[in-house]
Amino acid sequence: MTLPRMTTEILPDIQNMVDSRGIAINKVGIKNFRLPVYVQDQLNKGQHTIAECSMYVNLPCDFKGTHMSRFAEILNAEEFVVTLQSMKGTLLKMTKMLHARDAYIELAFRYFIKKNAPVSGIASMMDYKVTLIGELVDNRYVIFVKTVVPITSLCPCSKEISCYGAHNQRSYVTVTVEIKRFVWIEEIIKIIEQSGSCEVYGILKRPDEKYVTEKAYENPKFVEDIVRDIAVQLNQDDRIVAYEIESENVESIHNHSAIAVITCDKRA
Amino acid sequence: MTLPRMTTEILPDIQNMVDSRGIAINKVGIKNFRLPVYVQDQLNKGQHTIAECSMYVNLPCDFKGTHMSRFAEILNAEEFVVTLQSMKGTLLKMTKMLHARDAYIELAFRYFIKKNAPVSGIASMMDYKVTLIGELVDNRYVIFVKTVVPITSLCPCSKEISCYGAHNQRSYVTVTVEIKRFVWIEEIIKIIEQSGSCEVYGILKRPDEKYVTEKAYENPKFVEDIVRDIAVQLNQDDRIVAYEIESENVESIHNHSAIAVITCDKRA
Amino acid sequence: MTLPRMTTEILPDIQNMVDSRGIAINKVGIKNFRLPVYVQDQLNKGQHTIAECSMYVNLPCDFKGTHMSRFAEILNAEEFVVTLQSMKGTLLKMTKMLHARDAYIELAFRYFIKKNAPVSGIASMMDYKVTLIGELVDNRYVIFVKTVVPITSLCPCSKEISCYGAHNQRSYVTVTVEIKRFVWIEEIIKIIEQSGSCEVYGILKRPDEKYVTEKAYENPKFVEDIVRDIAVQLNQDDRIVAYEIESENVESIHNHSAIAVITCDKRA
Amino acid sequence: MTLPRMTTEILPDIQNMVDSRGIAINKVGIKNFRLPVYVQDQLNKGQHTIAECSMYVNLPCDFKGTHMSRFAEILNAEEFVVTLQSMKGTLLKMTKMLHARDAYIELAFRYFIKKNAPVSGIASMMDYKVTLIGELVDNRYVIFVKTVVPITSLCPCSKEISCYGAHNQRSYVTVTVEIKRFVWIEEIIKIIEQSGSCEVYGILKRPDEKYVTEKAYENPKFVEDIVRDIAVQLNQDDRIVAYEIESENVESIHNHSAIAVITCDKRA
Repeated sequence: MTLPRMTTEILPDIQNMVDSRGIAINKVGIKNFRLPVYVQDQLNKGQHTIAECSMYVNLPCDFKGTHMSRFAEILNAEEFVVTLQSMKGTLLKMTKMLHARDAYIELAFRYFIKKNAPVSGIASMMDYKVTLIGELVDNRYVIFVKTVVPITSLCPCSKEISCYGAHNQRSYVTVTVEIKRFVWIEEIIKIIEQSGSCEVYGILKRPDEKYVTEKAYENPKFVEDIVRDIAVQLNQDDRIVAYEIESENVESIHNHSAIAVITCDKRA
Repeated sequence: MTLPRMTTEILPDIQNMVDSRGIAINKVGIKNFRLPVYVQDQLNKGQHTIAECSMYVNLPCDFKGTHMSRFAEILNAEEFVVTLQSMKGTLLKMTKMLHARDAYIELAFRYFIKKNAPVSGIASMMDYKVTLIGELVDNRYVIFVKTVVPITSLCPCSKEISCYGAHNQRSYVTVTVEIKRFVWIEEIIKIIEQSGSCEVYGILKRPDEKYVTEKAYENPKFVEDIVRDIAVQLNQDDRIVAYEIESENVESIHNHSAIAVITCDKRA
Repeated sequence: MTLPRMTTEILPDIQNMVDSRGIAINKVGIKNFRLPVYVQDQLNKGQHTIAECSMYVNLPCDFKGTHMSRFAEILNAEEFVVTLQSMKGTLLKMTKMLHARDAYIELAFRYFIKKNAPVSGIASMMDYKVTLIGELVDNRYVIFVKTVVPITSLCPCSKEISCYGAHNQRSYVTVTVEIKRFVWIEEIIKIIEQSGSCEVYGILKRPDEKYVTEKAYENPKFVEDIVRDIAVQLNQDDRIVAYEIESENVESIHNHSAIAVITCDKRA
Repeated sequence: MTLPRMTTEILPDIQNMVDSRGIAINKVGIKNFRLPVYVQDQLNKGQHTIAECSMYVNLPCDFKGTHMSRFAEILNAEEFVVTLQSMKGTLLKMTKMLHARDAYIELAFRYFIKKNAPVSGIASMMDYKVTLIGELVDNRYVIFVKTVVPITSLCPCSKEISCYGAHNQRSYVTVTVEIKRFVWIEEIIKIIEQSGSCEVYGILKRPDEKYVTEKAYENPKFVEDIVRDIAVQLNQDDRIVAYEIESENVESIHNHSAIAVITCDKRA
C-alpha cells in the first residue's frame, strides 16, 4: 500500500464558487451524526446518553455549496452538554460559522427516568425517546420538545360488550410542544403517563402486576380519549404555545395500529 | 378450550356516545395496514405490488370515537386498484362511511420499472418507494406523489482537489409534488435520475460498469447541485403546484449523511 | 455533460484473477435485491407479491472474486415464479452460472390470506412475513420455511391474580421449519394461530370484538405456553425434520418484550 | 378514576406450577430492555453509553414459566458497569436467581472512539455498533465480541476498466469473534479499518478529503478482499478461537448490496 503524500498546498474551495441557477436551498447539512451527550434532567444534575443529530443551515442562491465539516466541528468542540437553554447558542454559532441566516438542529436521544413500581416500590429505569428541535429562521427562534412515551391502553368498547376481559396493548404517545418558557421533559412525560389506561414500568412484581391489570381495566381509553386528555392538560399550560399529540395503539386484536392526532396552535 | 358463544344480541355502540371535553380530533384512523394492490403504470396497464396504508378522518368534538373497522372495509371491498384518478373517490367514500368532513389516505408501495443497462442493454428491474397521498380537507382536494429514487453522487470537491479518483456513494432523493394535473410516476423518476452524477441499475455487465464509472466522474454533483437541478425541472412543469426535494448522500468517507432540501409553493 | 464513449473493447476480468491468500469464502453474493414475484398459494393458483432476495455462492481460495451481475440475471430471466419445488432448480442454476459448489438463496415476502371474522364472517386480508430459504451445500439440499405470525397473547398470571381483566398484547411468533416433504405455508400459519390466546384479524365488527376479547380471556397463555403448544404440533408432523420456534410478546405493561425459544432437530 | 386497592395478600405463583407437556424451553427471557451503562474502554477508564439488552435462561420441561421480573432486577441492581470480565458473573447471577442451568446475555451499544483526521489532525468522535454476547451452556462459558465498523470500499474492477474514477461506497463490516483471552474492542476495530480501501471519519477538512480520496483509489478492494484481509489478521491472533466476518458494500452503482462472509472455527 502506497500512502498518498500529505498535502500542504492551497486546495481550491469549490463550495465557495458562485452558482448561477438562481435557486436558494432551504436546508443543507448533516444527518445521522451520533455523539455522546450530557443532558440536563430534573432529578440529578444531568444524565449521559447518546444523541443522533441533524444540523442544517440555509444556502443563498448565489453560493455553490456549504462547508459540511463545520457542522460536526461545532458538536465536537467539547463534551457536548445539551440543555433547553443552550440550543439557541448552538444555533447562533451555526449561523456564524457557516455564514448563514437560518439554522436548524435536532438532537434525538433515549432519556431515562428511575420509576418505582406502584405497590412493591421496586425501582427500575424507564426509557423514553426525546428530541429537542431548535430553529432560527428569519431571526425568529423557536424550540420544540418531542417526547415518545409508551403506555398501556385498554379498549372501552371491548370492555363494555364483553362478559369478561378487554383487549389492551402498548401504545406509543408522541407529543411535540413548542414552548415559550422552560418545561421539564419529566413534566411532559407525566402528563402523558397519566392519560393512558395505565403507565408501563421496567420491573413489576406480582402485586404490581395485579395493580396495573386492575387499574387499566378501571380506566378504559380509546385512542381518541388519550389524545384528548393530553390536550386538556396542554391547553392549561401557558408555557406551551403550540402542540401536536399522536397516539399509536399497537392493537392486540389486529395486525395494524389505531391512530389519533390533535394539533393546536394557541396563537391561531 | 371453551369457545365463547356466538352473539346475536344488540351490542352497545360506545364510540357513538357524546363527548363532553369539547376537543375536536384532527385525524383518527388506522396505520400500517398492508394489502395487495394493482397500481397503474405507464408501460403496462398496471403492476401488482404491496401497499402499506394509512387512513384518517377528522372527528368533531362531540363524538366519543370513530368506527375503526370501516377503514379496512373500504380497502377490502374488492381487489384494490390504485390510480391517481381513483384517490378522490376513496376519500369521498371515507367521508361518507365515517360521517366525516375531512379524509386522509396514504398508500406507500415499492414500484418497479424495467431498465436497460446503458451499454449491454441487458434488462433488469429497479425498485422505487412511491407514496400516493390524498387529502380532502374543508372540501378542498389535494394530491401528492412522493418518490424515493436511488442515484449515484460523485463529489466535485473530492474530484477537484485529488490527483485521481473522487469519493462517490449511493444517494436517496425524495421528491414530493403536489399536482393539479396527471403526472406519471415514471416522469418524476426520470427527472431525478437525470439529476444525479449517474443513475443506478439492477444489473451491470463490465462495459456498463465502465460507462457508469466514467459518467459519474464526468458529472460531479454536490448534494446541493442535485436538489437544484431537480428544482429547475420542476419549476418548468406547470402541472406541479408545490414540491419538496430532499437528497440524502450516504457519504462513503463519513459515518453520517449529507442532506439538502428545497421546498417551493408556486402559489406563494 | 459529456457522455463517455460506448465501449466494445475487451475489458480485463479482475474477478477471474488468482488469489494467493489461501482463504476460501463461505458466501459471496447480493442482498436486498427486490423484485415482483408470483408465489404459489393453497387457495388460488398463486399470489403476486414483492420479494427481498439474498443469493450467495461459495468462492474457492484461489479465485479473486465472483461475478455479481449473474445473481440478478438469474432472477430477472423471466417473471419470477416462487414455489417450494422450484427452489432447488434455482440453486442448481446458481452453482452452474457461477461455477460454485455451494449456493444459498433467501426470498422474503409478505404473504396474504383472506380470513373471515369469527362471528360476522366479514372477509379481510391478513399479511404474514414469509421467508423461503434454500441451501445446496456439499451436494446436500435443504429447504427452510420461516413464517412470522401475529397473534394475541393474554397473561395467565395477570388473569389469576387480578379481580378483573388481564393484560394482553400482540405477539409475533416466528417458526422456521426444515422440511423433507411439501408443507403449505397455510398449514404452518394455522398451527401458530391456534396456539395463541386468540388469532388476530384485519376487520372485526362489534360482535367479533366481543368474541376475540372473551376467547383470549378464556385461553390465557404465557410466552412459554405458546412455543410449547406449537412444538407439540410440529413434533407430530413427520414432514418436518427440524424447527425453531420463537414468540415475542410485546408486553402491554412494559417497554420491553418477553421471549421464548424452542429449537429441535428430530435427527439428533 | 378509582385506584385499585394496594394488595398485601399472598398471590398465587402460576409460573411455578408444573407443566405436563414434557417440552423443555431453550431460552426464555426479555428483549429490547434499554439501560444506561458504563463500558470499559482502552483510552479512558470507561465510557457512558446506552445498551439494548437481551437475557435468557433455559426452562426445564416440568416448569410452567420463568420469573421475568428477575432479569431486569439483575440489570437495575446498581449503575451497570460492562466489561468483558464481568459478563461471566452476570451469567452466574442469572442462573442462581432464576434457578436455571443455562444463561444467555447480549448487550448491544454504540461505542465511541476519538479519531484524528489523517492530515489536519482535527479530532472527531466515530461511533461503532458493538455487542457483547455471553453464554453459559452446560457449564461451558463462551464470550463473543461483535463489532460493526463502517469503512470505504473502492472497486478494483471499476478502477481497472475505467479511463478515470472508480465507484466506491460505504461498507459495513461485521466481525464476531469468540475469544479465550481478553481483546480490546479497539484492536478489532483497527484490524477492520485497515482492511478497507480507506477508513471513515467524523470530520474531514479539504486536505484530509484529498488524502482519503487518493488513498481509497490506491487501495481498491473487492468485498471478497476485505473479508480475506481481516481473516488473515484474525488467523494470526491466538486469543481468538472462532470468528465470522461479513462485509456489506452498499453499492453506489446499484440499489442492492454486495456481501461476503467467512466463518472459521480454529478448533475444527
